[in-house]
Amino acid sequence: MSDPLRGFASDNTAGASPEILAAIAACARGQARPYGDDELTGRVARRLQDLFECELDVLLVPTGTAANALALAALSPPWGAVLCHRDAHVANDECGAPEFYGAGLKLVAVGGEGATPDLGELRAQAILNRGDVHAVQPSAVTVTQISEAGAVLSLDEIEAIGALCRELGLGLHMDGARFANALVALGCTPAEMTWRRGVSLLSFGATKNGALGAEALVVFDRTLTPALHYRRKRAGQLASKMRFLAAQMDAYLEGDLWLRNARHANSMAARLADGLARLPGVSLRRPAEANIVFARLPGHVSRGLLERGYLFHPDRREPGCFRFVTSFETSTAEVEAFLAAAGGLASSRG
Amino acid sequence: MSDPLRGFASDNTAGASPEILAAIAACARGQARPYGDDELTGRVARRLQDLFECELDVLLVPTGTAANALALAALSPPWGAVLCHRDAHVANDECGAPEFYGAGLKLVAVGGEGATPDLGELRAQAILNRGDVHAVQPSAVTVTQISEAGAVLSLDEIEAIGALCRELGLGLHMDGARFANALVALGCTPAEMTWRRGVSLLSFGATKNGALGAEALVVFDRTLTPALHYRRKRAGQLASKMRFLAAQMDAYLEGDLWLRNARHANSMAARLADGLARLPGVSLRRPAEANIVFARLPGHVSRGLLERGYLFHPDRREPGCFRFVTSFETSTAEVEAFLAAAGGLASSRG
Amino acid sequence: MSDPLRGFASDNTAGASPEILAAIAACARGQARPYGDDELTGRVARRLQDLFECELDVLLVPTGTAANALALAALSPPWGAVLCHRDAHVANDECGAPEFYGAGLKLVAVGGEGATPDLGELRAQAILNRGDVHAVQPSAVTVTQISEAGAVLSLDEIEAIGALCRELGLGLHMDGARFANALVALGCTPAEMTWRRGVSLLSFGATKNGALGAEALVVFDRTLTPALHYRRKRAGQLASKMRFLAAQMDAYLEGDLWLRNARHANSMAARLADGLARLPGVSLRRPAEANIVFARLPGHVSRGLLERGYLFHPDRREPGCFRFVTSFETSTAEVEAFLAAAGGLASSRG
Amino acid sequence: MSDPLRGFASDNTAGASPEILAAIAACARGQARPYGDDELTGRVARRLQDLFECELDVLLVPTGTAANALALAALSPPWGAVLCHRDAHVANDECGAPEFYGAGLKLVAVGGEGATPDLGELRAQAILNRGDVHAVQPSAVTVTQISEAGAVLSLDEIEAIGALCRELGLGLHMDGARFANALVALGCTPAEMTWRRGVSLLSFGATKNGALGAEALVVFDRTLTPALHYRRKRAGQLASKMRFLAAQMDAYLEGDLWLRNARHANSMAARLADGLARLPGVSLRRPAEANIVFARLPGHVSRGLLERGYLFHPDRREPGCFRFVTSFETSTAEVEAFLAAAGGLASSRG
Repeated sequence: MSDPLRGFASDNTAGASPEILAAIAACARGQARPYGDDELTGRVARRLQDLFECELDVLLVPTGTAANALALAALSPPWGAVLCHRDAHVANDECGAPEFYGAGLKLVAVGGEGATPDLGELRAQAILNRGDVHAVQPSAVTVTQISEAGAVLSLDEIEAIGALCRELGLGLHMDGARFANALVALGCTPAEMTWRRGVSLLSFGATKNGALGAEALVVFDRTLTPALHYRRKRAGQLASKMRFLAAQMDAYLEGDLWLRNARHANSMAARLADGLARLPGVSLRRPAEANIVFARLPGHVSRGLLERGYLFHPDRREPGCFRFVTSFETSTAEVEAFLAAAGGLASSRG
Repeated sequence: MSDPLRGFASDNTAGASPEILAAIAACARGQARPYGDDELTGRVARRLQDLFECELDVLLVPTGTAANALALAALSPPWGAVLCHRDAHVANDECGAPEFYGAGLKLVAVGGEGATPDLGELRAQAILNRGDVHAVQPSAVTVTQISEAGAVLSLDEIEAIGALCRELGLGLHMDGARFANALVALGCTPAEMTWRRGVSLLSFGATKNGALGAEALVVFDRTLTPALHYRRKRAGQLASKMRFLAAQMDAYLEGDLWLRNARHANSMAARLADGLARLPGVSLRRPAEANIVFARLPGHVSRGLLERGYLFHPDRREPGCFRFVTSFETSTAEVEAFLAAAGGLASSRG
Repeated sequence: MSDPLRGFASDNTAGASPEILAAIAACARGQARPYGDDELTGRVARRLQDLFECELDVLLVPTGTAANALALAALSPPWGAVLCHRDAHVANDECGAPEFYGAGLKLVAVGGEGATPDLGELRAQAILNRGDVHAVQPSAVTVTQISEAGAVLSLDEIEAIGALCRELGLGLHMDGARFANALVALGCTPAEMTWRRGVSLLSFGATKNGALGAEALVVFDRTLTPALHYRRKRAGQLASKMRFLAAQMDAYLEGDLWLRNARHANSMAARLADGLARLPGVSLRRPAEANIVFARLPGHVSRGLLERGYLFHPDRREPGCFRFVTSFETSTAEVEAFLAAAGGLASSRG
Repeated sequence: MSDPLRGFASDNTAGASPEILAAIAACARGQARPYGDDELTGRVARRLQDLFECELDVLLVPTGTAANALALAALSPPWGAVLCHRDAHVANDECGAPEFYGAGLKLVAVGGEGATPDLGELRAQAILNRGDVHAVQPSAVTVTQISEAGAVLSLDEIEAIGALCRELGLGLHMDGARFANALVALGCTPAEMTWRRGVSLLSFGATKNGALGAEALVVFDRTLTPALHYRRKRAGQLASKMRFLAAQMDAYLEGDLWLRNARHANSMAARLADGLARLPGVSLRRPAEANIVFARLPGHVSRGLLERGYLFHPDRREPGCFRFVTSFETSTAEVEAFLAAAGGLASSRG
């Protein structure tokens, strides 16, 4: 084995929460009905209903891209357009999964601060060419919570986008790959952050926050459910031994593990951001709102850290700016060691 | 919790092998590169190369339907036809996944004993309408090992189909959801059962035989690999925390766990078949070749067993015939208890 | 130029009716609104409403395959199955167009005399696996009028299939590439042959019966219309200078040209069938019902005719049987000359 | 009938050239092989080979959208990206046809003066994320000649884009809906404007320039041809009575009708532009290069002209700017009458 990986490349480099591993082990003996007809899967659905305080349907899938692509295909016909921010994961990091699942639907990108779609641009695109047979038809909006820029959409922002969707008859999907990180940042309830503001479908992520690989597609608009079940199977996303996805999600929700994990990750990001901001020549692009930090580093600092084996990604849009992601597993010691290394570099030259 | 499930509904009602659970736990701490760039995933590839005695590529995916659909899409253009047996899983049990992944490709079904495609019918379909722009173009053959009827394709049968494919320029895919069960039944090497007989792509299943949810798409025709990577991502089948799929497969192969599990399942099926065949009024449709048994039961026997809570499925094609599947987890005690119950019913009335 | 083509290969080897050419020329000067907003297109819609005695929508397209594929995509989700006869044009002669337009939908073929789907088989397939997420879901039935075997579906047959579709919630499409030939054979009204018996979408063909290339997708279930317009455009099937399709269809319907053409074609087929049936060694597979004749010819007769330059196709299913198609352009003299040649050959040897 | 349409809405509001109508009538009697096996279709292929001075293949289709979508699907895998200008017809006016034909491929839009893709932006997009499995892969570039802004791409511009494509292994498609208008504007040969500068596939339009509905997909990279034939059929774009498409194209090319038509249209545009530019308060956005003029009109002038029944479209991007398109049918008298009306309005108030 090579040296252990370290740094802040992404929260998907983290392992799994012990509680989740234990839950998997606990359900691993004996027979269970396959394909989601087992008891654990049923329990997860009830848990999510309680959590979201409403009737809803749940489809567990192994990846976030699957949840997102299923959702967008459910909300848009093949001749539809799904509006998103131009930095959205669905538009840039899923190799065209929405277009594939949606039989050629089109993502239409808009701008907006903090990778949050600008409301005016959304409206302009949403009313463009409506009813014109030569143009794809705006059908849905998707937002990422927290956004690709690390921003937490406020309840007012979600409310405004939800109102626009209601007004114009568009579906609203939330990519909640980091739902928990956003929720604890806002300090609101899951309902307040979703269906109460118009979200019809939610990709409720667990993988980045402690699971091995389990995401829930949460369906608030239950008229969409029957088709989603066929789409999931047809996409090869229906796990036969579903209990092992369900066990992950069950343990994730049990005893607020998900919120504890997210709070920890967010606090590590805050500590990291705070430490970085104090270094000479370093500046944050925006305050750390959840578990992602974007910071501008002098070249010799970023190079030095990479040479020391710390992993983190350059920002796509701004040269000299880097992304740091913390997870439930990030320790204070790791953050401090990193800050010490960065501090040494920052003060050495420049 | 309700009563524990029992019976022989499928091998996907089984849990997971302790060794595989242990491997997951062992790799769950600390950071690892995501998306398959981790060390475990690399090790799995090397293991499979050693096992199959050739250069090959490996793509791990969470479900067998995903592996199958990716394979067929790789072997056929959208205007292609994939020839299969009319009872094939890809044709009946995947809700059109091959058609979806393959952008509308067509499955063309043929007959054949034991759910093995008849060679003459394969040839007839394979040369039908070649080059005729009005017709889909035969592009590949897919076989299931073991077949949906529980039959093990012999090396000669695979050889003959492989020769046909070579002659006519068709790809050959093997759906090896129960690859291990077939291999131990034949007592051959993995290479002998696959690429040495012309298989270009293999769905190498682990889920039914002890894993939680992990399948390897094994690529012998490595010209297909680059496109498969994009297809996998685009299908939402690229796990971010790939180590957890890799750990399953690694432990599955380690110390021949996979072969031990399969041998056990097969021996339980043999015992079950043997016991059933001795009962009055009961007959086997065919000798048990691997871990699936089809047996004809008198009505009062099948009803009585179902009433006692034993789960097993009626055969689709023959009323009064039932399918029994054993797994690595099936115990002698379970088989004996079941046979005792069946025996009691069989001798009670009739 | 080589020798002129002759024989009975298909009605699509025929040219165009003078009336239709004249209509094209008559509308060819000056500006007209594009994409179907012109006056002629509107007039065609009104004509078809009058003809079918109901409210309906019309989408003109250049080919029959386009009309069929649009229709099936409108009636079936991607995870749906469309039931058809195994000899159906949509299943064999369109290179997978329904699968393409329908994002991977599946055609499920049944048997039946005269290429008419057997009602019992239809029912069996239609109720198979309903609601089972592992299986594609029967969504629609398509019939060809006249069938690929030259048979005219009776009103009772259409009624029975329509009743089945109503009962089970399936859409019903009629591929009317030779609608006119069937209509004059049955002597009924267009309404009686379609929506009054449950047809929801009709491919109303004109090309084979005198047009250059113009088909009307007639929409009886008008809830399907909006999506069809986007699908047509997206499929590259929305003609910019639509007036030229509309002019064809307008002239086709004007003064019952379509019925006169069809009656002529049918009468030529009757004459041909009658003459063939009298020849030694020749037998008809079935009485000529419309404009297609299937006849069994001795080998030296078929070879001799082909050597003399007559074109006609062997039947796919029955060696020694050949298909002869007449058109609006077929002349009595042609038929007589052909029969004379066949007669000479039939009596010469054998 | 209502008042005749007039104005400059588009060149697709024009009728058909008499020579083309005559050619249709001339071939309309007697039998011809269907689906492109007729003599006229062969002759068109030879004509285009002569015209383009190279070996090439030709697929005739009824619409320009079909030609474009077939071309892009041929040049890009489903996980590919096709780079185009953000004003491109394929991106805005085809309701997602490229995405449909291309099984979910993605159009990636760039900016650039005159609706010509900016070379720097093209390069930046073309090298973005190459080989990254999370991102769609740049596969082809498409340009429109003349562009949607009425600009004629110079030979140098095409050369530069072609060189980029060669360097980076991208296909190059030219949407030549107004190919003739560009050619006569440049005064070069067809070869110089296409394959000699790297174009692999050309949509060679005839519809807007005098045909009823006929476009040639010209294949310079003949390795693409076999798949294109299946795609065309499968898309419902293979006309059975192909002779009627071929006759149009044959007459279009005969005696340089196509060039004469285009020269006339261009000269009418020049006259129109010249006249408009002289009016008080009116300015051209750019000099008229072919047959499209964009001019800024005072509100009372544009309103007055529309009230007088003249049709023309507002520009999508610039309020107060309008698009005027001339055709082979536009007469000097029409232009003069329009200019007189515009002049009267322009001087009346302001």
